[in-house]
Amino acid sequence: MIEKTPSVVVVGSVAVDWVITPKAERETSVGGSATFFSMAASYFGPVRLVGIVGKDFPEQSITDLQASHVDTEGLEVVPDGLTFRWKGRYHDNMNERDTLDTQLNVFEHFDPKLPESYRRSEYLFLANIVPALQLKVLDQMDERPRMVGLDTMNLWIENTRDDLLKVLERVDVLTINEEEARQLTGEPNLVRAARRIHELGPKSLVIKRGEYGALLFHDGDVFSAPALPLEEVIDPTGAGDSFAGGFVGYLARVGETSGESLRSAMIYGSVMASFCVEGFSYDRLKGLTHERIDERFMAFSRLTHFERARLL
Amino acid sequence: MIEKTPSVVVVGSVAVDWVITPKAERETSVGGSATFFSMAASYFGPVRLVGIVGKDFPEQSITDLQASHVDTEGLEVVPDGLTFRWKGRYHDNMNERDTLDTQLNVFEHFDPKLPESYRRSEYLFLANIVPALQLKVLDQMDERPRMVGLDTMNLWIENTRDDLLKVLERVDVLTINEEEARQLTGEPNLVRAARRIHELGPKSLVIKRGEYGALLFHDGDVFSAPALPLEEVIDPTGAGDSFAGGFVGYLARVGETSGESLRSAMIYGSVMASFCVEGFSYDRLKGLTHERIDERFMAFSRLTHFERARLL
Repeated sequence: MIEKTPSVVVVGSVAVDWVITPKAERETSVGGSATFFSMAASYFGPVRLVGIVGKDFPEQSITDLQASHVDTEGLEVVPDGLTFRWKGRYHDNMNERDTLDTQLNVFEHFDPKLPESYRRSEYLFLANIVPALQLKVLDQMDERPRMVGLDTMNLWIENTRDDLLKVLERVDVLTINEEEARQLTGEPNLVRAARRIHELGPKSLVIKRGEYGALLFHDGDVFSAPALPLEEVIDPTGAGDSFAGGFVGYLARVGETSGESLRSAMIYGSVMASFCVEGFSYDRLKGLTHERIDERFMAFSRLTHFERARLL
Repeated sequence: MIEKTPSVVVVGSVAVDWVITPKAERETSVGGSATFFSMAASYFGPVRLVGIVGKDFPEQSITDLQASHVDTEGLEVVPDGLTFRWKGRYHDNMNERDTLDTQLNVFEHFDPKLPESYRRSEYLFLANIVPALQLKVLDQMDERPRMVGLDTMNLWIENTRDDLLKVLERVDVLTINEEEARQLTGEPNLVRAARRIHELGPKSLVIKRGEYGALLFHDGDVFSAPALPLEEVIDPTGAGDSFAGGFVGYLARVGETSGESLRSAMIYGSVMASFCVEGFSYDRLKGLTHERIDERFMAFSRLTHFERARLL
């Protein structure tokens, strides 16, 4: 099946993070939205990465991506630059964090160029980067992809709202945090925020809620995917991007976007996010098998299943 | 079926609240844990209320309870006292609130006495009151009920921990907020907090997460019940108690506590909570029908359903 799966192009950050949690710390933890997305999506079909790193980026991570069959032709390595760096500390509940430091480095002048071989891909995910660059990538596609997904953040909602609205008009699926959905629409109620977002372009909306799971709004329908209660959460960094990787990867694999496929995609996204948080960086996303992924899908099924009951 | 359902006794607060939300306000809003529990549980079978109010308590609310077939023999009316009063303001997200004022009034010297007719009930719910009184009620039962449920709060966890631990040993189901579960056990991770709570007595644990739904831990199994995304949340006060009413009410009605029944009970609890928050006080819990309750149960089914999928 995997041979026939259309490839997914992702553009986003590739970073070296410094992650501090209540119980542990990793000073050189490879991260970035495109990295997590790619590693997660790679289990569903071919992935093509667009990003930028500096001379300090660990060679091992490029090897890891390639070993996971991620096409890195679109990963620009700047020989005299440094990789984007983020440093953050998680609170005791592991659901909130403080950013301690951000160094854009080569990311500041990132000018994504899609390799020729990427331009006819049917699935495109615009991970969290400045909307002007998301637009630029979308414009480089030979034709409008079958599905365009997008992630964004408070910074762009506040500072580059016009560009964001322009790209949103051309997007099929928006993945966004709960607070960002409220901020984007000015609407505290999520059901009404979702309606406003549909009007901005995206037919499908995924609202991410961290350890509380995610909601899908699509065609008047709502679906709630829980997060798996885990005994050991090591590092939540990248959970949302791993979710997006599993979500888009699964949709590309099945080749359709019916309500049912979107629901299964939400669960595969949740599965990949649950693996992600069990380790630093992409440690736990590496070397998974389809069998283990399916096992965890079944764990979500057990987690949410109930029989129909009636009072009448 | 309802004729055969064993009755549920609930002891807890009966209050007059002053509720302020971002969009509206009600100065005399009848509330209290026992009130919400009773109104919600009344759709599943007979309920017997134990509580205390003052001369200011609206006669209409006693009529409402009785019209819902809630036995109010155990509701003490103090002719020269005032009812327990709580005043609070909800934040924009409707999931957080600040307490502006609390007046214990007659509740300060509450000394619950179970009417003779209550003492052989098979189901007992000890809603959120000081643990010493919960113990006192439990001790007044002629024999150990088939199921004892308990709710509590941060105040008792901090100030009357020993009494709380003493009553917990004799409880089957604990319903508690997420933060309170962490506080009770000193364990930020919920899976491990749940294990600690099982060791304290309760075989079943319901962790309430407000607009994010609730988790059930039982016999090594976990079940996640979402909250229904609602377009109009009027007043979240009493949602947790309405949940408990639906949950315990359903269990009494089906007369068993298997894993499957507990899962359905979680959904009926969520159904009753979803009605509760759609109005001030118990406005929306009044005059429901089994048909509407079942309809909403089905909405939860649609909200969470997904097909099994496999990668392998």
